[in-house]
Amino acid sequence: MIQIALDAMGGDNAPQSEVHGAVLAAQELQIGITLVGDSKQIKQELKKHPTEGLSIDIIHASQVISMRESVAVALRKKKDSSIRVATHLVREGQVSGIVSAGNTGASLATAKLMLGVLDTVDRPALAALLPTAKERPALLLDVGANVDCKANQLFQFAVMGESFARLILGISHPRVGLLSIGEEEIKGNELTKEVFRLLQNAPLNFIGNIEGRDVFKGEMDVIVCDGFIGNVALKVSEGLSEMVTNLLKKDLSTYLSSQIGALLSRRAFQDFMTRVDYAEYGGAPLLGVKGAVIICHGHSTPKAIKNAIRVAVDFCINRVNERIEKEINIHSS
Amino acid sequence: MIQIALDAMGGDNAPQSEVHGAVLAAQELQIGITLVGDSKQIKQELKKHPTEGLSIDIIHASQVISMRESVAVALRKKKDSSIRVATHLVREGQVSGIVSAGNTGASLATAKLMLGVLDTVDRPALAALLPTAKERPALLLDVGANVDCKANQLFQFAVMGESFARLILGISHPRVGLLSIGEEEIKGNELTKEVFRLLQNAPLNFIGNIEGRDVFKGEMDVIVCDGFIGNVALKVSEGLSEMVTNLLKKDLSTYLSSQIGALLSRRAFQDFMTRVDYAEYGGAPLLGVKGAVIICHGHSTPKAIKNAIRVAVDFCINRVNERIEKEINIHSS
Repeated sequence: MIQIALDAMGGDNAPQSEVHGAVLAAQELQIGITLVGDSKQIKQELKKHPTEGLSIDIIHASQVISMRESVAVALRKKKDSSIRVATHLVREGQVSGIVSAGNTGASLATAKLMLGVLDTVDRPALAALLPTAKERPALLLDVGANVDCKANQLFQFAVMGESFARLILGISHPRVGLLSIGEEEIKGNELTKEVFRLLQNAPLNFIGNIEGRDVFKGEMDVIVCDGFIGNVALKVSEGLSEMVTNLLKKDLSTYLSSQIGALLSRRAFQDFMTRVDYAEYGGAPLLGVKGAVIICHGHSTPKAIKNAIRVAVDFCINRVNERIEKEINIHSS
Repeated sequence: MIQIALDAMGGDNAPQSEVHGAVLAAQELQIGITLVGDSKQIKQELKKHPTEGLSIDIIHASQVISMRESVAVALRKKKDSSIRVATHLVREGQVSGIVSAGNTGASLATAKLMLGVLDTVDRPALAALLPTAKERPALLLDVGANVDCKANQLFQFAVMGESFARLILGISHPRVGLLSIGEEEIKGNELTKEVFRLLQNAPLNFIGNIEGRDVFKGEMDVIVCDGFIGNVALKVSEGLSEMVTNLLKKDLSTYLSSQIGALLSRRAFQDFMTRVDYAEYGGAPLLGVKGAVIICHGHSTPKAIKNAIRVAVDFCINRVNERIEKEINIHSS
């Protein structure tokens, strides 16, 4: 049975959302889950759910790295943080993967430091799933694991993202795009122009440059960029979604005062939110490290936590890391 | 009387939107407008509007640079394009400024080439006005005039943006932010870290780094970044707005079938669109060139064209370019 560690303390609603999500995952997926964090709090939360017959255990960790904490300081001082203890379990082979909704910087740094990078990989990349106008999401990477990347690193991001899209998202020939400021080959900065040439000559389904405007159209499955750009793009999208949602809530409540109107608008909202909410896809995989590492939003719902655990499980079953190592070897030779 | 040239042929709905916008501007602003483009088409459009007593004239240009055309080829081959003829009028001093909703790349290149850069400025920057959750918009620059910028260039963008926010948007102490991937000083790439130090030591109201997520919060008035990042951020926002709008239109029409519902949702939509639509703020100024150059969206409405003309007029009245030259001189010495 596959065993996944869940940082139970990191998220905004921890440990409620985490524990609830773990219970849902254990019910649906027939796997073992190790909840890492304050055992007293976790036990209290677990009491609220039916857990008979489920394989859920707890490993105590006395510290938590909060969202706004300096990652450098936290990693040095908090040796018994839930994210560190959980990641340690992966390193020791006691679990196959880890899911965390905590401080993203701390999760990234801990994974890189404690698990290390795959042999053929230069730098790991954080890959976010974006909603699109089509049925399936688009994978954007890197969204913040690296800034100031070299062309070869972006090339490897493409190979890793393609493997993930194929093995986990089930897309047979993932369309790979390069995020730039115009569709033509000559458009872009020095970095993207160099990456364009590398991708063009690789045995990938490389479609070409993609503009920011087209990211959500669903015409690409894997979109490659430097971690600085990717982070800005992702966060701008989140910020705009938030603003639009707030404005619309206000607008709709102003104009639709009748109960039926409110009811309908709630349903409309739910559909809308499902499409736009990144968490629905279950968190962002950190590709290129030794282990399955899935990083969730701080405000992840129990459903999002469950989905992230499912992605971690799929990641292990499909041996994504073995495939990535091989693919990069082939592309490099 | 201030005279502004309008490229009447560039936009998606040209010359209808342009001519209509010019008429609105001439009515409201008591200025002269020179419409540049196919005189036959322009005359036909003008007939649809009451123009008695308005100062609108036409200068013929036989060619148009289309949206999808290669800028390099178009600039070489189309010597009589509307954008080129209109920009020439600025260079000759026949008009004080130019507004175009045509091919952005062509407008940028033509302005840089024909008008030249202000004496103290290293590179011009295109500045877009973003809607925010607060009453006033935020100025994001550069959004595509330059890729691969140096730190000193981004510093100049901050100075130019600050001048524009003060003189045109009427903000007394514009809050300046640097677009990055974390609020702390140490977060960012090599470029932003260097720019951070420059801005910190300048006599500007520099608040610090701003994350993509916070761009729409209205906590900064001027947000500085490299043209590659800015272009991606802007276009990602546009793409997401488009997707959300389409999804919501579908959702609302599914759920709100009654006529009154549709009516209400149209009003709600209008409010929403007004806040999110960049065009409402009247186009993006190209800061740092000799002349007032305002670049609009291809799909600009007549109202957006009118607003852009108003910005061009304000730009001239407030002598923004003189102030920018002086400010950069002060900051450099």
